[in-house]
Amino acid sequence: MKLNERGLLVVMSGPSGVGKGTIRKALFRIPDNNFTYSVSMTTRKPRPGEVDGVDYFFVSRSEFEANIRAGRLLEYAEFVGEYYGTPLSFIEQKLSEGKEVIIEIEVQGALQVREKMPDAVFVFIVPPSKKALEERLISRGTEDAKIIQQRLEKAEREYNLAYKYDYIVVNDDVGNAADRIYAIIRAEHAKTERSIQKYTKLMEGKE
Amino acid sequence: MKLNERGLLVVMSGPSGVGKGTIRKALFRIPDNNFTYSVSMTTRKPRPGEVDGVDYFFVSRSEFEANIRAGRLLEYAEFVGEYYGTPLSFIEQKLSEGKEVIIEIEVQGALQVREKMPDAVFVFIVPPSKKALEERLISRGTEDAKIIQQRLEKAEREYNLAYKYDYIVVNDDVGNAADRIYAIIRAEHAKTERSIQKYTKLMEGKE
Repeated sequence: MKLNERGLLVVMSGPSGVGKGTIRKALFRIPDNNFTYSVSMTTRKPRPGEVDGVDYFFVSRSEFEANIRAGRLLEYAEFVGEYYGTPLSFIEQKLSEGKEVIIEIEVQGALQVREKMPDAVFVFIVPPSKKALEERLISRGTEDAKIIQQRLEKAEREYNLAYKYDYIVVNDDVGNAADRIYAIIRAEHAKTERSIQKYTKLMEGKE
Repeated sequence: MKLNERGLLVVMSGPSGVGKGTIRKALFRIPDNNFTYSVSMTTRKPRPGEVDGVDYFFVSRSEFEANIRAGRLLEYAEFVGEYYGTPLSFIEQKLSEGKEVIIEIEVQGALQVREKMPDAVFVFIVPPSKKALEERLISRGTEDAKIIQQRLEKAEREYNLAYKYDYIVVNDDVGNAADRIYAIIRAEHAKTERSIQKYTKLMEGKE
């Protein structure tokens, strides 16, 4: 029995290239899960194979800026000349339905969410070493050398922000990392501050 | 990769009759676990099937009191005229070997441990309802009506102490409860305060 009925907002973040997207996909393959993926909005161009509305909502700069002005984004960030943001209303609805909402965002955006949603669970995904991240970014082969260099410099600054997160998960193996995040979600539901209200009702025989 | 290398002390507690022993056995059946059970010391008589050194160390009152005087117990409590306690040296050794030490103790004892070992993880096991606990105690058939009544009165006081624990786990199904405790253990290892030291070393390339 899960004592906390509201869904959790799980913020997966970490340096670019660390494998957040792959872990998220592994997480969603866990049987009988109750996860919803919060699709981000971006102005960057789709990579080969990426689908609008599934991987991202791909929008123009003017559309993105209209969403900012209307306060329809939980967070947004500009990175390497492109906007990335998280639409808000979808998240609120899913949480109240008891769904776990997984968002996978850049570090800058995650720290904005922390201020607005202190109840969310913040997971920092890290590579097993700096070298491993560099190799991953190069082998991905989707960006040119200059962008890779920018990402590595940004990662260097982000490594020092781990202490702002609730959990640190090493992506040494995608399956292990996803399993550990699943464990974090189950554990968070059992945390006393999230479960004591329902527990008290149970003991009073009101449920 | 587990970023925290020291074992966790996991204190499973909850009202008498809630099924702590059964959950502990289910927990130890999880494949590839790294758990060690801290065997308690008691002056009560063995129940049918209980084995000395496995279920408890069964000792005399004078032996138990000698252990108290020598400071060899992490905690102890007297309940229904019998002593129950946790030998200390064994726990320290196993934690430093990276083993998870599971202790399964009465509420009174658990709160003593909280003071001495603030780093430990405290899990309160609760029945799905008060009625369910009463039925369990009666169906167990190992105590007479007077002792059952004492246990129920004690449970009534203990239900209000849930807020002192880190997690609340409902024993609606033994397998589910054990799985959730396993998730709690995995999540606790990933907590930033437990993992940041090793993470920093990884990033400096020192491990």
